[in-house]
Amino acid sequence: MSFIELKREVYEANMELQHRNLVTYTFGNVSQIDRDRAVVAIKPSGVPYEALKAEDIVIVDLENKVVDGKFNPSSDTKTHTYLYRQWSDIGGITHTHSTYATAWAQAQLAIPCLGTTQADYVFGEIPCAPVMTDARINGDYEEETGAQIVDCFAGRDPNESPMVIVAGHAPFTWGKDAAKSVYHAVLLEEIAKMAYLTKTLNPAISPLKQGLVDKHYLRKNGKNAYYGQAS
Amino acid sequence: MSFIELKREVYEANMELQHRNLVTYTFGNVSQIDRDRAVVAIKPSGVPYEALKAEDIVIVDLENKVVDGKFNPSSDTKTHTYLYRQWSDIGGITHTHSTYATAWAQAQLAIPCLGTTQADYVFGEIPCAPVMTDARINGDYEEETGAQIVDCFAGRDPNESPMVIVAGHAPFTWGKDAAKSVYHAVLLEEIAKMAYLTKTLNPAISPLKQGLVDKHYLRKNGKNAYYGQAS
Amino acid sequence: MSFIELKREVYEANMELQHRNLVTYTFGNVSQIDRDRAVVAIKPSGVPYEALKAEDIVIVDLENKVVDGKFNPSSDTKTHTYLYRQWSDIGGITHTHSTYATAWAQAQLAIPCLGTTQADYVFGEIPCAPVMTDARINGDYEEETGAQIVDCFAGRDPNESPMVIVAGHAPFTWGKDAAKSVYHAVLLEEIAKMAYLTKTLNPAISPLKQGLVDKHYLRKNGKNAYYGQAS
Amino acid sequence: MSFIELKREVYEANMELQHRNLVTYTFGNVSQIDRDRAVVAIKPSGVPYEALKAEDIVIVDLENKVVDGKFNPSSDTKTHTYLYRQWSDIGGITHTHSTYATAWAQAQLAIPCLGTTQADYVFGEIPCAPVMTDARINGDYEEETGAQIVDCFAGRDPNESPMVIVAGHAPFTWGKDAAKSVYHAVLLEEIAKMAYLTKTLNPAISPLKQGLVDKHYLRKNGKNAYYGQAS
Repeated sequence: MSFIELKREVYEANMELQHRNLVTYTFGNVSQIDRDRAVVAIKPSGVPYEALKAEDIVIVDLENKVVDGKFNPSSDTKTHTYLYRQWSDIGGITHTHSTYATAWAQAQLAIPCLGTTQADYVFGEIPCAPVMTDARINGDYEEETGAQIVDCFAGRDPNESPMVIVAGHAPFTWGKDAAKSVYHAVLLEEIAKMAYLTKTLNPAISPLKQGLVDKHYLRKNGKNAYYGQAS
Repeated sequence: MSFIELKREVYEANMELQHRNLVTYTFGNVSQIDRDRAVVAIKPSGVPYEALKAEDIVIVDLENKVVDGKFNPSSDTKTHTYLYRQWSDIGGITHTHSTYATAWAQAQLAIPCLGTTQADYVFGEIPCAPVMTDARINGDYEEETGAQIVDCFAGRDPNESPMVIVAGHAPFTWGKDAAKSVYHAVLLEEIAKMAYLTKTLNPAISPLKQGLVDKHYLRKNGKNAYYGQAS
Repeated sequence: MSFIELKREVYEANMELQHRNLVTYTFGNVSQIDRDRAVVAIKPSGVPYEALKAEDIVIVDLENKVVDGKFNPSSDTKTHTYLYRQWSDIGGITHTHSTYATAWAQAQLAIPCLGTTQADYVFGEIPCAPVMTDARINGDYEEETGAQIVDCFAGRDPNESPMVIVAGHAPFTWGKDAAKSVYHAVLLEEIAKMAYLTKTLNPAISPLKQGLVDKHYLRKNGKNAYYGQAS
Repeated sequence: MSFIELKREVYEANMELQHRNLVTYTFGNVSQIDRDRAVVAIKPSGVPYEALKAEDIVIVDLENKVVDGKFNPSSDTKTHTYLYRQWSDIGGITHTHSTYATAWAQAQLAIPCLGTTQADYVFGEIPCAPVMTDARINGDYEEETGAQIVDCFAGRDPNESPMVIVAGHAPFTWGKDAAKSVYHAVLLEEIAKMAYLTKTLNPAISPLKQGLVDKHYLRKNGKNAYYGQAS
C-alpha cells in the first residue's frame, strides 16, 4: 500500500469518527499500520476535523520517528505504536473521549457484560486498565499508557475484547484496520450507554449468564459462526 | 401480494427503523408475513442499512426455508417464524437493540405502566421474558427465543402488549404489518426512556391506577374507541 | 380574525411542536381561542404532523361543538375549552407528552424551582395536578382533566406558572396565543430535564432561595421588568 | 479593530453558541473586549438568534454606557464588564444556560476533576460560586454576580479554570477572545455531562490523582507543552 493510500484510509477513518458524533473539537485520533513497511499513519496533533485533509496525515515508524508529513503526529502516537509492537495481529487503533465510555473510565469501572449487544462483539467484560502509577505518569507517559493497556490484557487475547477503557482517562479500540477500530469505538459508546442505563436502573443486576455470552459471541465470532453472509 | 410488493414493504419498514434512529450499523430486522402464501419476507443477515436494496429482502417459508432471494436471511429468522406460527393474527415483527428498551432488558425488569403514554398502546405492563435456560440456549436458540416470548404471554392476548423485552437481550414488537411493528418499536423506545427517567427520579413510584389504564387503553383500542377519525 | 387566519396560526404552532422535537407520531395538540367569536381552533384527532395541512384544523365553540372543519377535533378538546372558559386571559394551549416533563408527571412530583432558568418564567414551582379520582375518570374524562388542572391552581394566578403537569399523564402549557403556549412547552421540557439531572445528581438539594426567584421572575415579568427591548 | 470588525466577531461567536446547541431561544450571550478602546461588544437583550444580525451587536464602555448600537445590551452586561475590569488578561466571555453545566449549578456543586478530559483544560476542579446573599441580590444584581465569581477565584488564576458555575444560576466561561470563550462553553458542557454520568454511576468516586492532573494540564498548557503544532 502506498503512503497516499494509507493516508487516505486513515483520513477517512478519522472523519468517520466525527461523522458518528464521537468527537468534540480535536479530541480523538485514529491510526493504521502497514506491517510490510513497518510504518503507522496517524492523525496530526491538535488539527480540527473540519480542517483535516488526507495529505495532513503523518507517517511514523514503530519508534515514533516521522517518516512522512509536515505536521507533528498525535500526542498519543507512542500509545499506538506500543500497542502495534506488542500485538502483532491488530491493524488499526482508535482513541476517543466519547461520552459514555469516558464516564465508565472516570468511574474507574470495567464494563460488565450485561446483554447480548455486548456479547456479540466482546467475550465477557470490557476491561478497565487501572489508574497509572506516578512512576509511569512521570516516565514516558504516552508509551506507558500502552504498557498499562497491555498489562491489563495479561493472559487474554486482545481480539476477545477489541476495546478497553483506561481509568481516569478514556477508551482505546482496535481492529484489523483503521475503519474496523472506528467501528468498535462506535459500538463501545453504544454499549457503554446501555450499561450505564442498566446499572442506574437496577444497581443489583448481575452479569449475563455465561451460556448466553458464549452463544452470542461464538455465533458471530467462533469457528462455526453463522451470522452474516458466507464470505 | 407479489413477492416484489412484499419485499418493497419490508424494505421500507427496515429503512424506517434506521430513519427513526433505532439501529446502530446492522442491528435490527423487520419482517412481514403473507398469510395466503404462507411466506415471510425478512432483512438479510448482516447487511448494512446504507447498502440495503428492496430486492435484497429474503423470502422464507414458515419452516425457514429460503423461497426467494440471494442472501442468507436474518440470523433471527426462526424467532420471527415461530411467532407467526403461534400467533395467527400478527402480520409484521420488528427486532431492535434500541437503547432504552435494551437497558430494561439488561436490567431484567418488565416495564410497569407508569403513565397514559404507555396505557394508550399497552394494556398494563410490558412483559420481560426471563433469561433463557441453558437447555434452550443450547437447543435451537433462535426458535427457542420465540418460544420464550410466547410462554411469557401465556393467558395474555399478544395484542394487549404488542411489544416484549427479552431479559439479557433486547425487544421484539409486532403489529398488523411490518410498518405497524416498526411504529410499535418507536413507541416502545420512547416509553422505555420515560419509564427509565421516572424510576430513577422516584424509585418508590407505583404503577398507574387501573382506572386510568382502562380509560386510556380503551378510548383508543376498545369497542367504543373515540380517538382519531372514524374509518 | 378570520377562520382562515386562525387556522393558519394554530397550524403553524402545531408544526413548531414537531420542529422542536416535542412529539412522537400524533402525540400532542395546540389550540388558540378567538375570544370575540368565542371559538377555538385545534388540531384534528390522530392526524400525523407530516400530513397535517392548515385547512385540516378544526374550529369548535366553547361547548365543543364543531363549527367548521371536516375532521374530528383532538380527543383532548374538552380539556382545552374548559381551561379557556375558566381562565379568561389565556389565548393558546399546548398539550404534549414531551419526554422529561412526562417523566415528572409519571413520578407524580411537582417540579421545584431549582434555578434561575425556571424562575425567569415561573414564579416558584411548576405544580403537579394529582392523579384523578375514579369518579372524575369515569365521568366526562377530558373535561374533568381541565377541572383537575384548575383545582390545583386554586388561589394561584395561572400566569405565574404558564405550565402544569398532570400526574400519571403529561404536561399542559398556555400563553397569550398558540405560539406562546408552544414556547412554554419547549421551555418546560428544558426545565424538566435540568431539574431531573439536578435531583439525580444531588437528591438533597433544596429549592432556590426566594430572593433569587423574586429577582429573576420580576426582572422579566414584573412591573419594573428590564429584560429585552422596550416595546 | 473597528466597531464593525468587533461586532462581526461577537456576532459569529454568538451564532456558534446556537450552532453548538447550547441555547434555547434567547438564552445566553457572548461578548468581547477591545482593550485599546476600552469598549465591549455584546449581544442585545432578548433578541432571538434566528433574527440576530452583526449590526445588532451593542457596544458599551466599561461602565456599561452604550457607545454604539440601537438595542439594549444583554441584561447580563454588568457581569461581563465587571469581569473585564477585574481580570485584565481575558478578552471574551460567554454566558449560557447549557443543560448539564446548569444542572451542576442547580445542584450547587463544584465539578470535581474526574478525568483527563477536564485536566486537559482546567487545572483541578471547576469552582461553584455560592448562592448570592440577599444583600447582593437586592443590590446591583448583575454586577454583584461578577463580584461573586471573582470572589470565588480568590487566590486562583482565572486562566487555570476558564469556566465557573454560579450556584442556582448557570455557567460563565472566558478566554482570549469571544470565540475562545465559546470554545470553553462547549467543553464545559461536555465535561459537565461526563461528570454527571460518572457521579451517578459511581457516587463514591474520588477526584483524579494530582499527578495525572498535572501531566495532562501541563502537557497542553504549561511552559513545556508539547500538544498540537509549534506556533
